[in-house]
Amino acid sequence: MYEPFSFRLIAADGAARTGEIATPHGVVRTPAFMPVGTQASIKGVHHADVRAAGADIVLANTYHLMLRPTAERVAALGGLHAFMGWPHPIITDSGGFQVMSLAALRKVTEQSVTFRSHLDGAMVELSPERAVEVQGLLGSDIAMQLDECVRLPAERGEIARAMELSLRWAERCKRAFENSAPAGRALFGIVQGGDDMKLREQSARALQDIGFDGYALGGLAVGETQEVMLNIVGESAPMLPVEQPRYLMGVGTPADLLEAVARGVDMFDCVLPTRNGRHGLAFTRFGAINIKNARHADDPRPLDAESRCPAAREFSRAYLHHLFRSGEALGGTLLSIVNLYYYQDLMAGARSAIAAGRFDDYRAQTFEQWREKADRTSG
Amino acid sequence: MYEPFSFRLIAADGAARTGEIATPHGVVRTPAFMPVGTQASIKGVHHADVRAAGADIVLANTYHLMLRPTAERVAALGGLHAFMGWPHPIITDSGGFQVMSLAALRKVTEQSVTFRSHLDGAMVELSPERAVEVQGLLGSDIAMQLDECVRLPAERGEIARAMELSLRWAERCKRAFENSAPAGRALFGIVQGGDDMKLREQSARALQDIGFDGYALGGLAVGETQEVMLNIVGESAPMLPVEQPRYLMGVGTPADLLEAVARGVDMFDCVLPTRNGRHGLAFTRFGAINIKNARHADDPRPLDAESRCPAAREFSRAYLHHLFRSGEALGGTLLSIVNLYYYQDLMAGARSAIAAGRFDDYRAQTFEQWREKADRTSG
Repeated sequence: MYEPFSFRLIAADGAARTGEIATPHGVVRTPAFMPVGTQASIKGVHHADVRAAGADIVLANTYHLMLRPTAERVAALGGLHAFMGWPHPIITDSGGFQVMSLAALRKVTEQSVTFRSHLDGAMVELSPERAVEVQGLLGSDIAMQLDECVRLPAERGEIARAMELSLRWAERCKRAFENSAPAGRALFGIVQGGDDMKLREQSARALQDIGFDGYALGGLAVGETQEVMLNIVGESAPMLPVEQPRYLMGVGTPADLLEAVARGVDMFDCVLPTRNGRHGLAFTRFGAINIKNARHADDPRPLDAESRCPAAREFSRAYLHHLFRSGEALGGTLLSIVNLYYYQDLMAGARSAIAAGRFDDYRAQTFEQWREKADRTSG
Repeated sequence: MYEPFSFRLIAADGAARTGEIATPHGVVRTPAFMPVGTQASIKGVHHADVRAAGADIVLANTYHLMLRPTAERVAALGGLHAFMGWPHPIITDSGGFQVMSLAALRKVTEQSVTFRSHLDGAMVELSPERAVEVQGLLGSDIAMQLDECVRLPAERGEIARAMELSLRWAERCKRAFENSAPAGRALFGIVQGGDDMKLREQSARALQDIGFDGYALGGLAVGETQEVMLNIVGESAPMLPVEQPRYLMGVGTPADLLEAVARGVDMFDCVLPTRNGRHGLAFTRFGAINIKNARHADDPRPLDAESRCPAAREFSRAYLHHLFRSGEALGGTLLSIVNLYYYQDLMAGARSAIAAGRFDDYRAQTFEQWREKADRTSG
């Protein structure tokens, strides 16, 4: 059963790549979409549905879990896999991003970040060493270094300062990880540098000097346009080693995913499929469908009669519309499931297309179908 | 596929009975627990889980559906079975109970009840004929007469007036049903009379003179004690024909169900399994467990390792506790599923025990186990 972390590149097609990440809890096929289980639960969706949708791996949030139920409690209960009943691969973030976005009264020093818990107001310190310790207690297959993420746009000086601090924290994380992590687990470094490619290059090089099992692009999808983000991704990916996985954090829409895969990204996580699902937005082959729109009230057609997803085939748009209009939680659950299947199928299609050397066609046809069908049927 | 409504008594054990109701959409094994899909959705639970739990039939609310999405819209979409994607038997109530409990500004006359919709404030009229028409548009397998339900305690004069009005409405419902219902559907009468057994007897006799496919006991679980309710059930059931199903509306706890089965009731509906599940209360063989209680925070045991329900076997109490503490909707969904399985298994056990002539033992052992295990493990 046990297998140490490794990455095997199966095929490349232009900059796009397909491969397999081995972990102690199973294999992750790349390009991979990783559903977000913020508090050890993919919001509103049963694990069985997450798995049936095709997810090889889920992401859990260190920040949330260290505050509640606490990492020590999860460890005493056998680690996150046993605790949440997900025996497959798990990746954890370092908590840095949530500290910046959720916690009040945070103070960043060379040593650590100290913040006031959004739950009970307690002051909590998160250092690089503690971030590694917490992720070790959670027992994730892939851990992330602690970094400081700056919201764009920002001053170059501020971006540089945070990037350099993140590098020093990367080194401390690596040292702590080597001294404590169970064999076979992986630690990823995070490239920072905002929208400044010189800073990004400096960050990417220094991280490789430290040496990580994989590399993430951080500090993106934090306010910049899609064009800016894709330019940074396109220029940053070639700075990273070919033989290791590349992870674009917190991204994104189906279009973002295809564009980033085209630029050489292997892994994604995003709350969009479940958050949009809860708000009545379904991703389909025909483009996005806002099921709350009155035009669906009398529509007996399913979202997609040919979908692999039972919820997309078996329920009428009229019924899904009714569930949202009536405030029935089942509506949000069903659309979240529809979206999780869609994201997984999009990545499965990308993997096949890359292996067959026709990824450009796949991407173009997918965009074309969104546009075409949107004219006729959706909205 | 099509089969007209009929009831076949398989075995009796004392006053307890087991049998089978045939309907155009399939068979209902009795004693039967019917989960409540108020707005054409069993709150927070996927139909597949409702079915897997063992439900042969679900109840939908005429009052809610006539207001939204409207009965006419459901009919245009092929009826309730097609609309909600539940191809199995469906029973609808008449709307009378919700008019009394939800609508503001209601006015009851000989002709009908007029009320202000709780959704948009529109004035809506519900007559016996309209109640039958709406249920016909919904296309339920079993429809209920319109009645006027009085909250207990109440003056005898008020109870008698409402019971007599309900009888005249029963006759009008029967006439409307004969003139309009598709072949094979059933209409049930509802015995009223509050806690006055003379009125109950008068109601039961007059309903049988009109002639229905089944008989419900209405106006119970509306504020009286369990003892009062069970006395009324015990005295009323023998007033009803042996060869037709008996339905105790809106009841109840697991204990209520066993006691009412012992007194000759065949069918139940109640929101308790899902409502309590959403509030963190699990029904198990070991009694009720309040999963929000702090004692469960570190408990790695599942709710019931031997349950037929995957959610009761596969998730730890600590994880379920965490989901509730964290406000994750998955917690309410999982406990609702656990409770739906428990109710169905309780009824399946009752059916087997009655068929084997050992229902009294089954009931006594079930109560004993609740008490015994509660001392050791729950709370």
